[in-house]
Amino acid sequence: MRTVRIDVAYDGTAFHGWQTQPELRTVQGVLEACLATVLGESVRIVGAGRTDAGCHARGQVASFVTNGRLPVTAVAAHLRRRLPDDVAVNRVREAPAGFDARRSATARRYAYRLLDRPDLLLQRTAWFPRRAVEADVLEQAMRPLAGERDCAAFAARGGSASRTECRIHRAAWRRWEGGLQLDIVADHFLYHMVRNVVGTALVAMRHPDPAAAMEAVVSSRDRAKAGPTAPPRGLCLEEVFYPGEAFA
Amino acid sequence: MRTVRIDVAYDGTAFHGWQTQPELRTVQGVLEACLATVLGESVRIVGAGRTDAGCHARGQVASFVTNGRLPVTAVAAHLRRRLPDDVAVNRVREAPAGFDARRSATARRYAYRLLDRPDLLLQRTAWFPRRAVEADVLEQAMRPLAGERDCAAFAARGGSASRTECRIHRAAWRRWEGGLQLDIVADHFLYHMVRNVVGTALVAMRHPDPAAAMEAVVSSRDRAKAGPTAPPRGLCLEEVFYPGEAFA
Repeated sequence: MRTVRIDVAYDGTAFHGWQTQPELRTVQGVLEACLATVLGESVRIVGAGRTDAGCHARGQVASFVTNGRLPVTAVAAHLRRRLPDDVAVNRVREAPAGFDARRSATARRYAYRLLDRPDLLLQRTAWFPRRAVEADVLEQAMRPLAGERDCAAFAARGGSASRTECRIHRAAWRRWEGGLQLDIVADHFLYHMVRNVVGTALVAMRHPDPAAAMEAVVSSRDRAKAGPTAPPRGLCLEEVFYPGEAFA
Repeated sequence: MRTVRIDVAYDGTAFHGWQTQPELRTVQGVLEACLATVLGESVRIVGAGRTDAGCHARGQVASFVTNGRLPVTAVAAHLRRRLPDDVAVNRVREAPAGFDARRSATARRYAYRLLDRPDLLLQRTAWFPRRAVEADVLEQAMRPLAGERDCAAFAARGGSASRTECRIHRAAWRRWEGGLQLDIVADHFLYHMVRNVVGTALVAMRHPDPAAAMEAVVSSRDRAKAGPTAPPRGLCLEEVFYPGEAFA
């Protein structure tokens, strides 16, 4: 048995998210269908991040186990020929036995992009919040998120996270071409967490003390205290880290 | 009779360019069809830049003359409801009698975006040239383009430009999110000119003296001496300038 790792990017606009769902077009579903044709056997892939409908990925990692002997370069070439335009294989490689794209990951980096103004050419992958945002005020709102925090307040309603503590290595805003971007690196993300952090930061921004407002939300562990969920289009899974890889 | 100015943006991926063509989906065609419904009369619009198939616009300007009395705010609202997702109306306003989006323009700014590496999420509006590019070397290649130059070498083969002299106000490379971007401002552009300048710069870049290589192409006035035409997807009409407006 071999373990294979695939690094993929996708434009999530036309997908119902990562995870296989009956009757719906999902990234996992499309990849598994292609792999079944290429390998001549059905495989079940595991993805490092289960991105939602409409969210994107530049650095998603998937893994699977196979009995097949097709070299990874051939697997990559076949996939590139068969995959639709909105999924791209960045790399296919052999992984050590036991490698699991999800369980082996030590951290993930997500980006959430905001627009300063409506922009047709950027709005597939960024969101215009219809209000003026300032980097330093949003940055203040991020301060309470550093370190090990219970993020229950940011978990989707009805979610079933077994562990709500997250070690947040970085949560910082910076300027990009179209406006501001949140980069957040953590060992573990709850369902809707980044989008809820962004929605909460936009509310905290209007508070006289944005850091205190954010701290009150986090400490409450209460989803009802947090802000609205920012739309999926602004979210992108940028990188997944594995043991021995540095994340800054 | 009123003259109306419309500022529009479009993602050119699914269009056969700006200009109306029988049986083909073009931006002008889509706008004219929408306006006919909104105004109840058929109008002919004039665009400041006739972008090619697959090229984009963030700041295209169009104008038309109408007998209709519908206020511009209503025209804007109706267009926003009716236009497809890949065209956006930024603004509709009354223009002085005699205003013509094309003939009144004093300059236009185009951007051409290159990618440092393949990127699925950026490749709708940028091109990966499959070679390493350096800003300062590309910048050297731009030097001969400053000022009033005969740009016949960059005109499309088979084009029929009546005037090949262009006053180039600016032609400069800068970094953007995905790689390098050429910003070029001129009073007048020939068909395929920006894409041919980019293709020529990428060839000149490998010459020991990129400025001399570019100068030789410009002076020759010979399309055969210039480089290949860069693909349309990297090109975007960013701004159009009219009398009294500063361009830098």
